[in-house]
Amino acid sequence: MSFVTINDINPKVLKCEYAVRGEIVLLAQRLQQDLQEKPGSHPFDEILYCNIGNPQSLNQRPITFFREVLAICDHPAILDKSETQGLFSADAIRRASEILNQIPARATGAYSHSQGIKGLRDTIAAGIEARDSFPADPNDIFLTDGASPGVHMMMQLLLSSENDGILCPIPQYPLYSASITLHGGTLVPYYLDEATGWGLEMSELKKQLEDAKSKGITVKALVVINPGNPTGQVLSEENQRDIVKFCKNEGLVLLADEVYQGNVYVPEKKFHSFKKVARLMGYGETDIPVVSFQSVSKGYHGECGKRGGYMEVTGLRHEIREQIYKLASVNLCANISGQILASLVMYPPKLGDESYESYIAEKEQILSSLARRAKTLEDGFNNLEGITCNKAEGAMYLFPQLHLPQKAIKAAEAAKKAPDAFYARRLLDATGVVVVPGSGFRQVPGTWHFRCTILPPEDKIPAVVHRLTEFHTAFMDEFRD
Amino acid sequence: MSFVTINDINPKVLKCEYAVRGEIVLLAQRLQQDLQEKPGSHPFDEILYCNIGNPQSLNQRPITFFREVLAICDHPAILDKSETQGLFSADAIRRASEILNQIPARATGAYSHSQGIKGLRDTIAAGIEARDSFPADPNDIFLTDGASPGVHMMMQLLLSSENDGILCPIPQYPLYSASITLHGGTLVPYYLDEATGWGLEMSELKKQLEDAKSKGITVKALVVINPGNPTGQVLSEENQRDIVKFCKNEGLVLLADEVYQGNVYVPEKKFHSFKKVARLMGYGETDIPVVSFQSVSKGYHGECGKRGGYMEVTGLRHEIREQIYKLASVNLCANISGQILASLVMYPPKLGDESYESYIAEKEQILSSLARRAKTLEDGFNNLEGITCNKAEGAMYLFPQLHLPQKAIKAAEAAKKAPDAFYARRLLDATGVVVVPGSGFRQVPGTWHFRCTILPPEDKIPAVVHRLTEFHTAFMDEFRD
Repeated sequence: MSFVTINDINPKVLKCEYAVRGEIVLLAQRLQQDLQEKPGSHPFDEILYCNIGNPQSLNQRPITFFREVLAICDHPAILDKSETQGLFSADAIRRASEILNQIPARATGAYSHSQGIKGLRDTIAAGIEARDSFPADPNDIFLTDGASPGVHMMMQLLLSSENDGILCPIPQYPLYSASITLHGGTLVPYYLDEATGWGLEMSELKKQLEDAKSKGITVKALVVINPGNPTGQVLSEENQRDIVKFCKNEGLVLLADEVYQGNVYVPEKKFHSFKKVARLMGYGETDIPVVSFQSVSKGYHGECGKRGGYMEVTGLRHEIREQIYKLASVNLCANISGQILASLVMYPPKLGDESYESYIAEKEQILSSLARRAKTLEDGFNNLEGITCNKAEGAMYLFPQLHLPQKAIKAAEAAKKAPDAFYARRLLDATGVVVVPGSGFRQVPGTWHFRCTILPPEDKIPAVVHRLTEFHTAFMDEFRD
Repeated sequence: MSFVTINDINPKVLKCEYAVRGEIVLLAQRLQQDLQEKPGSHPFDEILYCNIGNPQSLNQRPITFFREVLAICDHPAILDKSETQGLFSADAIRRASEILNQIPARATGAYSHSQGIKGLRDTIAAGIEARDSFPADPNDIFLTDGASPGVHMMMQLLLSSENDGILCPIPQYPLYSASITLHGGTLVPYYLDEATGWGLEMSELKKQLEDAKSKGITVKALVVINPGNPTGQVLSEENQRDIVKFCKNEGLVLLADEVYQGNVYVPEKKFHSFKKVARLMGYGETDIPVVSFQSVSKGYHGECGKRGGYMEVTGLRHEIREQIYKLASVNLCANISGQILASLVMYPPKLGDESYESYIAEKEQILSSLARRAKTLEDGFNNLEGITCNKAEGAMYLFPQLHLPQKAIKAAEAAKKAPDAFYARRLLDATGVVVVPGSGFRQVPGTWHFRCTILPPEDKIPAVVHRLTEFHTAFMDEFRD
């Protein structure tokens, strides 16, 4: 066999972990194949994927207006045909024409400017201004294939060695731990306080920063995920102000993962961008670097497969922006459909447009249903012995804590698995429900969780709760101390 | 201003260079803006971009069938409407339906399998089999956003430190030097022989490999770009066999950049994939690792903005493939439109399909025009005093050598520029023609080149030659020793 062995591989790659598509998911895919080939071969008739924020894979329909515009932009030749008027709404045709006029040579098949098509960045900047009531500069926008490449770019820029650290929430979305590992830096953890609804305590931030400094680590940036992934909390504006002040005082770049900005389910909380909070505090462009990540994959639209997104880079010097531009250039540009979609998401139909009412109806239907699903699942978890679960105020996830009996922990040890991975594996085998063990996101040592999305179709949520309840009751009966 | 300074940045990022979108291109964009705002402000009325392989930005039209399929897949709801029959060809409707049926939940807005949608990989594998007459395994295919992310993944996998080297052709496409620098490895150069039409000499490969070894560098892989970028040559099959044998004997992974496989312009040369050549030599899956990169950006279709592509990974152990899978997973998946397009490119309409004739006509029109453009430009260059230019047998580029007078070299030194950058800058200022200085691709020390694409619209090629000739004559008159 090939002369390349595992010892020849970059150890950073070997070390990197990415649980969202880990062992449990591969097993689930095998089980699904089993069920197709031999129906009845398992104690369930379908796999219910609650492991990944991928709404359209669970039959969520795309927003009609967005897809109309994308289809026309993909094949602009149909603009000259009479049938097009019957197939597409008038404002989708108009918007697609406007977008095509913004693209040099109307070429949706051409590489764009490395930061993305200027006209689309203008639109996105207008959308950010409408959201924040503060100016946004199209030259600050870097369009990316989803949010992930932007995060990688910033990590690549900021991390030179393991002496460079990034403060990251724990639990965290494993893109951060994976990216920091791949770029050879050190993840400096700060723990979210589960007891206060995954609160972000300033004392904890300070303690962890000092601790890292005492180990000789230069902390470059603070990652905040708001709304939270996997934890589903929405930060209060006061908390955000404290965080901004902390970054300003400590000289940290604020890396704000704001991809769930469109997913807030409770009336008492609102999304505020960190840039807006900083501006409200009187901090201008030159006072604090804030990089905001946004994605078309999340929100009510959930267009994961389109790989669209952007980062808004503010407060970094010109010569550093040039380095980011160079990194963006090495990959040429983000895909144009994703770029177009990012502009649509940030600047959707307006009151008076032909599609406005259907657009709002589609959006509200999805968001209100997600809110109901979150509540039903949260209540379902909290009804179970030995499970406590904070509210999903936003994002797409619940992150219930498993208070496992010692016997279960011992059984997991015997099976050489983390207790939450042991639980998730048993859950999958018994019910076909796929969740991600908390250890994939990191957690307070000695605590065990799993991440469960709120995305299964609403009519399947009772079945999810029912299967979980049956399984969990039996599990506790089997392992009760 | 912000507390983050250039000294805080990863030195690998600072060191990385990417000339294709470097200084000259930024200047060209400014000149273009000038011309829009103040027509007549420069001695030319338009910028002619010959710097980047981006055909559709220069008015090349996309292939109708491909775009029809993409548009329907973007908005499958139109499949139920009667107008759709009038707007799209029957086989595009059929192909789109087939593709949608291959996608779980028919969701073009869902993340796919990390390697890409299985059904599309099946199609691509079938296309590779038809091309090579050897089997291809869909599980070997990793769909990527263009070819670049695949190259980055392989570099990330193979490079642990500057003691790890990659043999790269010089001149090379700067993605390779940039990616090797970013991942902290060492580029081990092997020089293509300009005198024999950019021939790849085995003695040179051996010499450079030994030289690297003697410096303590472990060479992990050999990059071959065929057809060549920026050099435009097409390797002979015999030469390919020697390269395969060299990799086999020396234990090197063969990284085959085959993105120009659809761009061969001379009847005496044919494209052969390295995998096919290895199989013809009797080397099987377990004998030699060959990774082939393909892109939708090149070929006759030139769909750069769609960011589609794949790598076919053969001959690597299962546990190493798992590491590649993990790296792919961290970025979730390639964009679905690009995935679909990659399947269309590798499996286009067949004889008997409704679109077949128009598809062939569009394809042949583009390829024959590119061949004529390449020849006209090549002759144009060779007619000039102090320029010699090899034939563009394939790809999209000419890489003429500038035999500059000493006086010009001195003038460049005084301007603190490489002589070819000095020349390219003067060319742009005088004519609006944008080329990339050879120093961006590296070249034999003391020689000077530039890369010029063959992509300007055919009716503008005489103007390009005319402007170049006028400029070059005046330049030589100014600097003749």
